[in-house]
Amino acid sequence: MSLNSFGHLFRVTTWGESHGPALGATVDGCPPGVTIDEAQIQHWLDRRKPGQSKYTTQRREPDQVKILSGVFEGQTTGTPVQLMIENTDQRSKDYSEIAEKFRPGHADITYWQKYGIRDYRGGGRSSARETAARVAAGGLARAALNALVPGIEIRGYMTQIGPHGIDRDRFDRDQIDANPFWCPDAQAAGEWAGYLDALRKSGNSVGAVVEVVARGVPAGLGAPVYGKLDTDLAAAMMSINAVKGVEIGEGMAAATLTGEDNADEIFMGNDGQPVYSSNHAGGILGGISTGQDVVVRFAVKPTSSILKPRQTITKSGEAAEIITKGRHDPCVGIRAVPVGEAMMACVLLDHLLLHRGQIGENRGRIG
Amino acid sequence: MSLNSFGHLFRVTTWGESHGPALGATVDGCPPGVTIDEAQIQHWLDRRKPGQSKYTTQRREPDQVKILSGVFEGQTTGTPVQLMIENTDQRSKDYSEIAEKFRPGHADITYWQKYGIRDYRGGGRSSARETAARVAAGGLARAALNALVPGIEIRGYMTQIGPHGIDRDRFDRDQIDANPFWCPDAQAAGEWAGYLDALRKSGNSVGAVVEVVARGVPAGLGAPVYGKLDTDLAAAMMSINAVKGVEIGEGMAAATLTGEDNADEIFMGNDGQPVYSSNHAGGILGGISTGQDVVVRFAVKPTSSILKPRQTITKSGEAAEIITKGRHDPCVGIRAVPVGEAMMACVLLDHLLLHRGQIGENRGRIG
Amino acid sequence: MSLNSFGHLFRVTTWGESHGPALGATVDGCPPGVTIDEAQIQHWLDRRKPGQSKYTTQRREPDQVKILSGVFEGQTTGTPVQLMIENTDQRSKDYSEIAEKFRPGHADITYWQKYGIRDYRGGGRSSARETAARVAAGGLARAALNALVPGIEIRGYMTQIGPHGIDRDRFDRDQIDANPFWCPDAQAAGEWAGYLDALRKSGNSVGAVVEVVARGVPAGLGAPVYGKLDTDLAAAMMSINAVKGVEIGEGMAAATLTGEDNADEIFMGNDGQPVYSSNHAGGILGGISTGQDVVVRFAVKPTSSILKPRQTITKSGEAAEIITKGRHDPCVGIRAVPVGEAMMACVLLDHLLLHRGQIGENRGRIG
Amino acid sequence: MSLNSFGHLFRVTTWGESHGPALGATVDGCPPGVTIDEAQIQHWLDRRKPGQSKYTTQRREPDQVKILSGVFEGQTTGTPVQLMIENTDQRSKDYSEIAEKFRPGHADITYWQKYGIRDYRGGGRSSARETAARVAAGGLARAALNALVPGIEIRGYMTQIGPHGIDRDRFDRDQIDANPFWCPDAQAAGEWAGYLDALRKSGNSVGAVVEVVARGVPAGLGAPVYGKLDTDLAAAMMSINAVKGVEIGEGMAAATLTGEDNADEIFMGNDGQPVYSSNHAGGILGGISTGQDVVVRFAVKPTSSILKPRQTITKSGEAAEIITKGRHDPCVGIRAVPVGEAMMACVLLDHLLLHRGQIGENRGRIG
Repeated sequence: MSLNSFGHLFRVTTWGESHGPALGATVDGCPPGVTIDEAQIQHWLDRRKPGQSKYTTQRREPDQVKILSGVFEGQTTGTPVQLMIENTDQRSKDYSEIAEKFRPGHADITYWQKYGIRDYRGGGRSSARETAARVAAGGLARAALNALVPGIEIRGYMTQIGPHGIDRDRFDRDQIDANPFWCPDAQAAGEWAGYLDALRKSGNSVGAVVEVVARGVPAGLGAPVYGKLDTDLAAAMMSINAVKGVEIGEGMAAATLTGEDNADEIFMGNDGQPVYSSNHAGGILGGISTGQDVVVRFAVKPTSSILKPRQTITKSGEAAEIITKGRHDPCVGIRAVPVGEAMMACVLLDHLLLHRGQIGENRGRIG
Repeated sequence: MSLNSFGHLFRVTTWGESHGPALGATVDGCPPGVTIDEAQIQHWLDRRKPGQSKYTTQRREPDQVKILSGVFEGQTTGTPVQLMIENTDQRSKDYSEIAEKFRPGHADITYWQKYGIRDYRGGGRSSARETAARVAAGGLARAALNALVPGIEIRGYMTQIGPHGIDRDRFDRDQIDANPFWCPDAQAAGEWAGYLDALRKSGNSVGAVVEVVARGVPAGLGAPVYGKLDTDLAAAMMSINAVKGVEIGEGMAAATLTGEDNADEIFMGNDGQPVYSSNHAGGILGGISTGQDVVVRFAVKPTSSILKPRQTITKSGEAAEIITKGRHDPCVGIRAVPVGEAMMACVLLDHLLLHRGQIGENRGRIG
Repeated sequence: MSLNSFGHLFRVTTWGESHGPALGATVDGCPPGVTIDEAQIQHWLDRRKPGQSKYTTQRREPDQVKILSGVFEGQTTGTPVQLMIENTDQRSKDYSEIAEKFRPGHADITYWQKYGIRDYRGGGRSSARETAARVAAGGLARAALNALVPGIEIRGYMTQIGPHGIDRDRFDRDQIDANPFWCPDAQAAGEWAGYLDALRKSGNSVGAVVEVVARGVPAGLGAPVYGKLDTDLAAAMMSINAVKGVEIGEGMAAATLTGEDNADEIFMGNDGQPVYSSNHAGGILGGISTGQDVVVRFAVKPTSSILKPRQTITKSGEAAEIITKGRHDPCVGIRAVPVGEAMMACVLLDHLLLHRGQIGENRGRIG
Repeated sequence: MSLNSFGHLFRVTTWGESHGPALGATVDGCPPGVTIDEAQIQHWLDRRKPGQSKYTTQRREPDQVKILSGVFEGQTTGTPVQLMIENTDQRSKDYSEIAEKFRPGHADITYWQKYGIRDYRGGGRSSARETAARVAAGGLARAALNALVPGIEIRGYMTQIGPHGIDRDRFDRDQIDANPFWCPDAQAAGEWAGYLDALRKSGNSVGAVVEVVARGVPAGLGAPVYGKLDTDLAAAMMSINAVKGVEIGEGMAAATLTGEDNADEIFMGNDGQPVYSSNHAGGILGGISTGQDVVVRFAVKPTSSILKPRQTITKSGEAAEIITKGRHDPCVGIRAVPVGEAMMACVLLDHLLLHRGQIGENRGRIG
C-alpha cells in the first residue's frame, strides 16, 4: 500500500514521478461554486518554480498546470479536480550510476528495500518535484478558503539558513518577496546571499527553517483528538521532502518554559471576541483554533545531493564512492516555503469543511 | 465530526471523558493469534499511572483495564478488541468555577467555541486521562509487534526538563527505570528532583522533552508520500496532549547542518545488511525505515493548571482571575513517556501490517 | 485487518461477541447538542429484543444499553459516544460440538479459514447479536436526524416471508406494529402466523424480504460517484447478517421495464418543490436524494440453524452430520426489521452531515 | 464532499466529465512488480467501447488509455498509477435544451439541487462515460490478481434483457463473446436481437440483468463485519450508473427458500479442500469467501435517454416536455458487463491485499 492522499474532506492525491510523462494532483471534495482558472493556480506554481535565482536548482521546467476536470465555465462543480503538470525537461541523461549506487540521505536504498523496484531517474517518486502537485492543489485550496473566509491570509518565509537566523526585531513582511530567500529580514537576506554563494561553489548544501503563519483563521477548527489542527499540520509539514522537525507556536522551546510564562492570558476584545496576551500556543488549544494566528515552523535538512564525495554501496552490496552531479538546490529549504504555504491552505480548508459539516461555524458564543 | 481514531490497518479509537463512567480504546485490525491478557496490558498502564511519586498528580486511579471483546482463550481473534478502564476517582468536587471560567492554556475556550457544550469536569475529553486508553492500546500493539518481529524494542525517556538537559555522555539505559523521571542520566535526575520540588512548592510547572527510540525495526516500513513513517509518527506524537514540537533524528537542528555533515554514509555490514556511519536521519529515509534505530523526540509544554493567578474571561465574557487548584503534575512531560512509547508501538505495528499487505517483507535485497 | 466501522462522518464501530462480557458501538462524529438518554436508545433496542413472540429466538437478553461517554447533562458533546450492552444470558452450555464441526450456512468455516481461531460460542463475532449494537447506534442517529431534519420518518416492515408476499392494496401503516411480523397487511400477517408455526415445529426456517422507507429526506443527500446514497445503503444493508440481495426503488424488477415506463416524470408542486409522477427510482437519482421517499428492500436468507440434519465436516476434515439445537429464530428476517431501520438512520445522518460540510443545504434552487 | 474513491488498500479514484478534456483513474496501492503496459489495459477498454454494434451508442470514442505514472520499464513501482483517457468526440453540440430542462431518470435535477452548478454537457460527471475509468483500473487489477493468484478468472455476462431471460440449461461460456450481448445462451441472444431492434426503432429502451462470476478465489477474503466481501461487492456494483439492485448467490430469491433447502452442505474434496453440495451462498459465508465461485448479479434500469416525450420542469420551474435526442444505448446494461467485471477485479484484489496484510494466506487449515 502506498498512501498518496491527505485530507479528510478536501482530499488531495498526488501522483507522478520526476521524469515520467507528467505529475499532478487529483483533488476530491472541493466545494462547488469556487471561481478558479489555470492562471490562478499557475501564480502559486510560479513561486515554487526552479531556476529563479542562482540559489535554486537550474533545472528549467515551465511547470504549466492544466485543469482536466471538475471546473465548468470557470467554477468548480463539486466533482474531482484533476491538475496535471507535464514534465518537459526530461533530458536524456545517463542514470546508470544512480541506478546502481544508493545516494546517502536519499530514499534510493529504502525504496529499493521496500518495493524491490524503483524509478531512479531524478529520484522518481521521492523527488521534491512531487511538491509541485501540492502547490497546485494549494492554489485551489486558497481560492476556496478565500471564498469561504474572506480576509484569511497565509504567509510563509524563512527564519534560518544553517546557523544564521533572522532577527525578529527586523521582521518586515514587505521584505519577504523582495529577496530570493523569502526572508523577512533584509539584513539577514544579505548575509545569507554570501553564505549560500560560498556553499554552492564548494559543492555543499545547508538546512533551513521555514515558518508559515495563517491570519484570520476562525476559532473552532480542529477535530480532537487525532485530527487536531496541530496534528494534521504536523503530518502535512513532516510529509514534505527533507523535513525533520515540526513546531507549533513555541515548539521545542516550550520545554524550557514554566507554566506561568507559557500561559496565554485571555481578555475580551473590543469586537466581542476573546483576545490573548500572547501566542505561545501558536493559535491552537486542545487541537482547536483559537482565532489567533496559526503558527507552524519546520526544519528542512540540507540537500542530500552534493558534490562532496561520500561513501555508499551498490545494489549488489559493493562499496562505492558517490558524487551527486546535476542541478541541485544548495538550500532546498528555500523552495519549501511555497510548499509549506500550500499544505497550510489545504489543512485549513479541510478543517473548515469538517467544522461546517458538524455544527455550523462558531456555535459556542462568548458574552 | 470528531476524529477519534488513528492508524490505517491497526486502528485505535479512543473514547471517554476524565470524569465519565469509563474510558477506553476500541482496537480494530489487531492480527489474530496474538497471546494477550489483561495483566500484560496492565503492566504498561501501571507505568503511566498517576500518584507514583510526588512529581506526578496525586489523583489516585487504579486504571484497571478490562478486555471486553476480541480475545478468546488468551488469544486475539482478529475481531475488535475493546479495552475499558472505569473511572473510580470521581470525587464529588465543585466544578462551578471551571464551568464558567476558561483556564488559560487549556482547551476550555476552544471546545466551547467549537461545540457549544463541554464536559468541564476535569477537562472532559481534553484531559490527559485520555492517554490511558492509548497506553492500553499500545500494550496490545507491543504484544503483536513482539510476536511478528522478535527482538524489537521500544524505549522512551526524558532528555530535558525546563532548561536542564541530560548529558549524552552519561546516557545509561539502566538508569531509565531507576528514577521517577525516566531519566537516562543519573546526575541529571538528581538535579531535576530539586528543581521540580521547588517548582511544585511554588505552584508552578515546567515543560520537558521526551525521546522515544525503537530498535530492531525492519527496513521498508513507511508508506510514501503522505503515510511516511515519520509523517505518521509526527501526527501520533503531536496528538498527545500538550505536545508542541516533534523531531525525527536531528530534528530542528538539521537546519544548522551542511549536506556533507548530514550525510549518513552507507557500508555493508558483516551480516549482509547495510550499516550507516551515523543516524542523522533518525532511521527514516524518504519516509521509509532504514533498519537503523527510529528516533523521535517531542516537546511537552508546561502543565497549564498552576496555582499562580492568571487573567481570563468567563462564558459571559466577564474578566476574571483564575487559579487552578487540584491535583496536578508539575511536569506533565514525565507521564508522557509511556504515552510516547505506546504511540510508537501502534505506528510501527500499523506500518508493519501495511508493508506485509503490499509486498511481503523486505522484498528488495541488497548484495 | 477487520473493518468494523461504517459511515464517513457519523462513524459507527461495533465490537463484541455473542458470548463475551459485552458488546457495543463506539460512535464517533455525532453532532453536539443532541438531546439523548439511555431510555431513548433502549426504546429501539426493545423492538429488536429476542423472545418477544414465539416467532423469534427464546434467548432472553434484557439488552440494556449504557452510555459510557460523549453525553453530558443529557446532551451529546461532539466526542465519541460509547454504547455498551452487557451479555447476561451466557448459559454454561456445551459448545464442544460446534467447536469442532462447521455449521452449513454459518461463518464457522470461513472464520476458521481466515483467522485460524474463532470464538465459536454462539457464533462469536458473526452472531446476529452484533446487530444489537447497530440498533443502539441507530437510536442515536435517529435523535440527531430528528433534531436536524424535523419531520423525517423511517419505517421498516416485512413484505414477504418465504413464498408469501403482502398485497400492496391492503398496505396499512398502522398494522405494522400490530402483529409480531412488522407486517403492514393484516391478512398476510394472519397467514404468516400459521405458516411459521408449522415451519418452527418441523425444525425448519425460511427467508424473508424487508422494506425500509424514509420520508421527509431532503433533496441533495448522496456523494457521487462511490459514496452515492444508494451505494452506501446497499453496503449498509448487505452488511447485515444473512442478507443476500438489496434493491433500491424498482430493484431487480427495473430490468423488465422500458425507459418509457420507468421514467419518473417531474412536475412543479404547489409548495414550489418538484414532485414526481411515480417513484421507480426509489428517491435517488445519480446517487443523490430527490426529496421523494427513499425506498430500500433486502432479502434475508433462512436461518441456517435448523433441526434438520445436514452434512458437514469437522476441523480435522472428517465427515459429520449436524443438527443445530438451541434457541433460534424460524425467520431471522423478522428481527432484521429494526436493524434495517437503524442502518437507514445512520446512513441518512451521515450523508446529511457530509452535505452540510460541503455546501450548506439545498444550494441549487428551482424556480 | 464528493467521494470519488473506492477500495481500502487498492484504492481507485476516478475523475473527469463526459465532455471535459479527459477522464481517468488515479490508482493508489497497486503492488509493485506487476507487469503491465497500455496495450493490456486497452484490451479491456476496447470491450466496453461504444459503437461496436447497433445495440450500443454510436458515439465513437477511441478511448485510448495513457499511463502517466507508477510504471517503470514495464512494471508497477508501488507508486500511484495514473490512467488517463482523453475525450476526443466532443462535438460542438447545442446543449441549451438540457442546460435548462431536467431529463427524467437522469441526475440533472439532483446534481443541481446538491451543487447548484452542473456540467450538463452529456451528463458531465454523472455520465456512464465515467465507467471507462473503472474499466481501465480493472485492467490493472486483473494483471495484479493474475500475478498473485494464478488461475483466477472473472467473467460477466447478461442473463436477462427486459422480460427475456436466458435458459440456464443452454448456458455456454463460449457463447459469451460470440454475440453483441455477452449472452451465454445462443438462442436467447437471437431473440434479444429482434427485441432490441424493435425497441431501438421505436426510440425506447429497456433494463437488463448482468451476472459476474469469479472462479479460483481463495478462501478467506472479506473483512467482517462492515467490509465483508459481499458488502463491498454490493457497494461496487450499486455505484455503477443505473444499477438498482444487487444480489449475491440466491439473492432476492433467498427469501423464498427454507433453511433445509438453502444449506450448502460441506464435504471434504479429494484435494484436501472443502467442497460444497451447492452454492446458494454465492461463495461467501459471514462475509468471507469460501473458495467456491463468487457470484454477483445486478439489475440495470433502462436507459433514461429516450425519444419518447416525457414531462419535466426547467431550472426556473416551468413545465416542459423533453425528448432526449442523441446517440444512446437502447440497453445500457450491455456495456455494464465489462464494468461489472472490472469492479469484481478491483474488489477481489483489494481484499486479497487486506488478507495478506493481516495474517498471510489461509492461515486456518482443515484436516
